[in-house]
Amino acid sequence: MAMPKDTYYLTAHCPGNLGTVDVVTRYLREQGCYVVEMQTFDDVLSRHFFIRVEFRPPTELAFDEVAFRAGFAPRAEGFDMQWQLTARQYRPNVVVMVSRLDHCLNDLLYRYRTGQLAMEIPAIISNHSDLQRLADWHHIPYYHLPVNDDNRTEQEAQVMSIVRECEADLVVLARYMQMLSPAMSAELTGRAINIHHSLLPGFKGANPYHQAYDKGVKLVGATAHYINNELDEGPIITQGVEVVDHSHYPEQLIAKGKDIECITLSRAVQYHIEQRVFLHQGKTVVFTS
Amino acid sequence: MAMPKDTYYLTAHCPGNLGTVDVVTRYLREQGCYVVEMQTFDDVLSRHFFIRVEFRPPTELAFDEVAFRAGFAPRAEGFDMQWQLTARQYRPNVVVMVSRLDHCLNDLLYRYRTGQLAMEIPAIISNHSDLQRLADWHHIPYYHLPVNDDNRTEQEAQVMSIVRECEADLVVLARYMQMLSPAMSAELTGRAINIHHSLLPGFKGANPYHQAYDKGVKLVGATAHYINNELDEGPIITQGVEVVDHSHYPEQLIAKGKDIECITLSRAVQYHIEQRVFLHQGKTVVFTS
Amino acid sequence: MAMPKDTYYLTAHCPGNLGTVDVVTRYLREQGCYVVEMQTFDDVLSRHFFIRVEFRPPTELAFDEVAFRAGFAPRAEGFDMQWQLTARQYRPNVVVMVSRLDHCLNDLLYRYRTGQLAMEIPAIISNHSDLQRLADWHHIPYYHLPVNDDNRTEQEAQVMSIVRECEADLVVLARYMQMLSPAMSAELTGRAINIHHSLLPGFKGANPYHQAYDKGVKLVGATAHYINNELDEGPIITQGVEVVDHSHYPEQLIAKGKDIECITLSRAVQYHIEQRVFLHQGKTVVFTS
Amino acid sequence: MAMPKDTYYLTAHCPGNLGTVDVVTRYLREQGCYVVEMQTFDDVLSRHFFIRVEFRPPTELAFDEVAFRAGFAPRAEGFDMQWQLTARQYRPNVVVMVSRLDHCLNDLLYRYRTGQLAMEIPAIISNHSDLQRLADWHHIPYYHLPVNDDNRTEQEAQVMSIVRECEADLVVLARYMQMLSPAMSAELTGRAINIHHSLLPGFKGANPYHQAYDKGVKLVGATAHYINNELDEGPIITQGVEVVDHSHYPEQLIAKGKDIECITLSRAVQYHIEQRVFLHQGKTVVFTS
Repeated sequence: MAMPKDTYYLTAHCPGNLGTVDVVTRYLREQGCYVVEMQTFDDVLSRHFFIRVEFRPPTELAFDEVAFRAGFAPRAEGFDMQWQLTARQYRPNVVVMVSRLDHCLNDLLYRYRTGQLAMEIPAIISNHSDLQRLADWHHIPYYHLPVNDDNRTEQEAQVMSIVRECEADLVVLARYMQMLSPAMSAELTGRAINIHHSLLPGFKGANPYHQAYDKGVKLVGATAHYINNELDEGPIITQGVEVVDHSHYPEQLIAKGKDIECITLSRAVQYHIEQRVFLHQGKTVVFTS
Repeated sequence: MAMPKDTYYLTAHCPGNLGTVDVVTRYLREQGCYVVEMQTFDDVLSRHFFIRVEFRPPTELAFDEVAFRAGFAPRAEGFDMQWQLTARQYRPNVVVMVSRLDHCLNDLLYRYRTGQLAMEIPAIISNHSDLQRLADWHHIPYYHLPVNDDNRTEQEAQVMSIVRECEADLVVLARYMQMLSPAMSAELTGRAINIHHSLLPGFKGANPYHQAYDKGVKLVGATAHYINNELDEGPIITQGVEVVDHSHYPEQLIAKGKDIECITLSRAVQYHIEQRVFLHQGKTVVFTS
Repeated sequence: MAMPKDTYYLTAHCPGNLGTVDVVTRYLREQGCYVVEMQTFDDVLSRHFFIRVEFRPPTELAFDEVAFRAGFAPRAEGFDMQWQLTARQYRPNVVVMVSRLDHCLNDLLYRYRTGQLAMEIPAIISNHSDLQRLADWHHIPYYHLPVNDDNRTEQEAQVMSIVRECEADLVVLARYMQMLSPAMSAELTGRAINIHHSLLPGFKGANPYHQAYDKGVKLVGATAHYINNELDEGPIITQGVEVVDHSHYPEQLIAKGKDIECITLSRAVQYHIEQRVFLHQGKTVVFTS
Repeated sequence: MAMPKDTYYLTAHCPGNLGTVDVVTRYLREQGCYVVEMQTFDDVLSRHFFIRVEFRPPTELAFDEVAFRAGFAPRAEGFDMQWQLTARQYRPNVVVMVSRLDHCLNDLLYRYRTGQLAMEIPAIISNHSDLQRLADWHHIPYYHLPVNDDNRTEQEAQVMSIVRECEADLVVLARYMQMLSPAMSAELTGRAINIHHSLLPGFKGANPYHQAYDKGVKLVGATAHYINNELDEGPIITQGVEVVDHSHYPEQLIAKGKDIECITLSRAVQYHIEQRVFLHQGKTVVFTS
């Protein structure tokens, strides 16, 4: 017996108020929709409310999404609610950006190929040509768009043109290693995920693993986050960690770091795809299963 | 700013049906109750529904629990729903049973004393006198009730008499090391938590850590579960695990096992106290935060 | 600055006796060899001694392995020592056996391709044709050798013929899903690694993940072990574990299990390749870094 | 059967050179000492060598420590070696300093009482009187030495006077919450362990958990380190980490942080007591078992 495939995600958030749950659940009941799974969170500090419902429409008839939306819109408006309806079967378009490092790309492509990540990858964009062959094997168009300080504006325009043409729902920076311009960051707010190392204590600047080595860290980690204007400082989606010891030279720290980067990035992408992540006032609410 | 203290937990489960969520959320809305946190799960395999809501009653008036229950009962009945209303401030009575090993008791008492586990401990019951002094320091009555094959029935009757007198909501077997009779197990169904080792692969019979040592296990773990008639085989609430290696002789495995037993047992007690655990058809649904 | 590449591993084990360390370290000193890393373990229960040394030969001259061995042999003999000398640069021949599931193979091939696992893969053997394309992309010969109850002896003979022809140092059963005959198991003792699920408590028989689901496990794990005559019961090399909850249906448990299988198997292969694993009397000593 | 109790730890470190291992192991052999466990590490980047041996002296005679030391000293000197000989049975004197928070003290005292940490605690020093009762129950002298900006020099003098009088081998700052003066830090170099939170990314300044909350961290951790002149920045001994999510308000983050602080601090103390930690050039080598 399998999971029901024809379900929908209804996600919403709004200022915390009496009736925020009821406005959603009552409508679902009136429409004959069956709630499969549901989580709400009312943040007592920011006084903001979050809800995620997975539901199954009535099976007798084809589900009329347009009518459903039209019926819910005025009710949601009464609560100043931002909301989204997504079919579970919908496979979002995910554009992956890479540089020369292939570990995160390889992991994403494996999970894409095996269906573990239910997405389409209409384009892989890189400022280097190194990973072309990997893209080819998966039959995914590869765009080689070199970038330097002189052509950054033009290159980003090309990138964004591809992103738009692909109707990308999400951009994944799988170790792209380039800082995005504020304009591009702003345009991609809430739909671009980056992965970077996380070290305890935090090390800023160049060669963080070498700094960590000098300090003798016993843990290395990775943070997946939405990009914002501050490099490596956006709202955190998920984090992972691994134990290390003194015998880990910087190159071993980096190798361990890569492993945990792969796992952490793919988990973040999965949460995003399954509509589990809310971005509000610079931090996230993540309804993990 | 602190968490609201005057909230209630409403938990319920019933056969999966259209309207199970709505019957709860609509009633809360009608009563002017504010939903703080909510989780539902509809098990597609067993076709059973589970819901946990933490809500804040209207603040203008004192909350009339009796009226709330009376109003909800007929609606719940329509869905064949088993449900429970618990004030967050309610501190359940937890009777702890121990033998000679003190690690789990010490951990529970520390979390009790510091308020991390919001419970009362009206009695500690043991078949040995060893842990009397620890109980005294915490000003908790200690009942020394020796047991052997000849007096088991009488001893269990004494235990159950204390359990009833204390109006115990929960019995925690914190390494009690005695098998309960089927009758006592049955009477305590869903309200007695046990902790035992978990080893990979599973080892049955005496000296499990020595068996695990012989096999060269690289992980040791612990399982907290509700008791049932089969010793160490009841429905699992939570599990923990620790890494070990070849230099861990049986006594070191046991020491590591103790650490993970403490953490795992206290986590299970906390989940139970916070009404996060549902027991249904021999397995649990646990809404962790 | 990089790690020294021209180092050697000297590993040995023998009955515990006075002088077991000295016989190794004195010889290395006499030969002018520089000890980079060293671990010993003297098992007080089995009274057996284990040592692993990574050393750098004198750099003035080419290292004469034959002379080194000839000089050490009589000394080792005096302690009834079994020992092995391996150049760090030596890339062992690893034959991978698979069935239809590709997650472990994909992970091994990625780590092989990127050099994280310093080995050669002269052959991939499968009883199905499904993973041919994956092998092709990595330019690795793929042998499709179907097996059933009637041809098992012949098929195993073919497999062993390939194993011998490749001069395989190690056979990795990357979810091969077939029980090996006692004869083949015996021939591969200490040089064939298998991966299987580990569940707490242990579940025997068919559909272990479904059994685990019925029990409501909160952890799933994987065990990498040397094969022996008992399926899934050989000496454990390493184990991994992941947290799950009630929302994991059997298929989700299996997916989580796959992730942890990949990581656990590749870690075991790495330990083996780096000469970190000793197999003695049915259990392992593993000198992790 | 138990572990041998009458063993010794010989630990040493010196510049990396040919013969560093042999000078130790040959001497042990000559003295008839049996090596139980041994680890060496030769740091290729700092070109420094570390060794830890646990050995059992010949059993026929009483072990003459003075003669052993006298014999080894000239050999060690030839390698510019700093070394230490410690009987496993020696219980080091550990002075614990606390403020008002009791979670780390409680954990240390429990492990002390049960023998898991084989140490004496001749004194607990606090700038507050809150934890007196806890000390009393364990029959440990409690020194209440209030401190403020005016009396810091005098108070530290009193503290150091107790430390000296107790012949303390180690000072544990179990959430002492006071910054030590550079003079006191210098005097305690390598024998004072502190515990502090570790958050990803690192947060400086006041209310780190509130900063972490604002960022939406998904992990909280703790770092145990030797103190140096920079608060919370000394050489790391060990680190621990726990998963959190959006439902953890600052107070819940702090509670989780406390749990991981206890475990991490006691592990660091154990490593130190068992002579597993080397401090060299501002970082540690830790030979965990």
